Amino acid sequence: GHLHNSEAFNYGVETWEAYKRGGLSKDLVEEQKKVQEADLLIFQFPLFWFNMPAILKGWMDRVLVQGFAYDLSKSYDCGLLQDKLSLFSFTTGGSQEVYSKEGIGGDIRYVLWPMQHGIMHFCGVKVLEPHICYAPENVSEEKRKEMLAAWTQRLKTLWKEEPIDCSPDWYFK
Amino acid sequence: GHLHNSEAFNYGVETWEAYKRGGLSKDLVEEQKKVQEADLLIFQFPLFWFNMPAILKGWMDRVLVQGFAYDLSKSYDCGLLQDKLSLFSFTTGGSQEVYSKEGIGGDIRYVLWPMQHGIMHFCGVKVLEPHICYAPENVSEEKRKEMLAAWTQRLKTLWKEEPIDCSPDWYFK
Repeated sequence: GHLHNSEAFNYGVETWEAYKRGGLSKDLVEEQKKVQEADLLIFQFPLFWFNMPAILKGWMDRVLVQGFAYDLSKSYDCGLLQDKLSLFSFTTGGSQEVYSKEGIGGDIRYVLWPMQHGIMHFCGVKVLEPHICYAPENVSEEKRKEMLAAWTQRLKTLWKEEPIDCSPDWYFK
Repeated sequence: GHLHNSEAFNYGVETWEAYKRGGLSKDLVEEQKKVQEADLLIFQFPLFWFNMPAILKGWMDRVLVQGFAYDLSKSYDCGLLQDKLSLFSFTTGGSQEVYSKEGIGGDIRYVLWPMQHGIMHFCGVKVLEPHICYAPENVSEEKRKEMLAAWTQRLKTLWKEEPIDCSPDWYFK
């Protein structure tokens, strides 16, 4: 549709205004409907460059617009997507040692901060413990089966889990 | 071109093999040539969700392939893109207070870790102090002009700057 302000283009303002007047493109509206209806959002991906792959980052950039996911002074514990849970489940290239506190990749929690706190917590979504499979490419077939079994097992009791506190202490203590 | 292993598709392996046999798509080869020739890489972007916008993340995902930017045990200080500098220059939505150590967004250095350490340092590229303009949308026109002037000024003496140490201490002390 038309621009809200064609003199000075501001991407954030334009998506916010488009959301309010129902002018977002159809694929975004559909994705937002899914988010609205979900009690739990599970993001499953391979870790690329200490974050999610660009295609999933683009989902965050495009779907979680102002007015829908957060608003002026409605962020973090007051974010608009209340009463939802999220879970980041991913595989890594590096081993668990690489992502230990003394490892060269640094504590894996440093990687989690921008995704869990910076995105989900910002929108008011609570965050469950992440689920991380380290270096599945470099382990035995048996170990890979164990990883799958552990995930299957976890999913069975996921609804009984309590969210993490998502404060800097959880990540950087 | 053809897949290296069409039985079990592995994105990382396929790009690595494609790089080695000169089979990457033309746009990637051109981008890699630019990186190869550059002494300094400046990444300029608006901070989206505590990281770069997806389109720039996609550049990292697609261009910095194994064999070109890093290799088996050739990462971090031994990464393949030696003798280059990088600089992350970005604007934020939140104010400087939001991104202070006690701010709700947390220390801005937490946001820098995955980009500076996790990407550039991983590839052997040295990192200059980031250049951050906080919330240009919400400041006066005069303040915005000051921001531009400060950047202009910094660019003049950029070559005299020393890289940061890029260790966890720099980010999380």
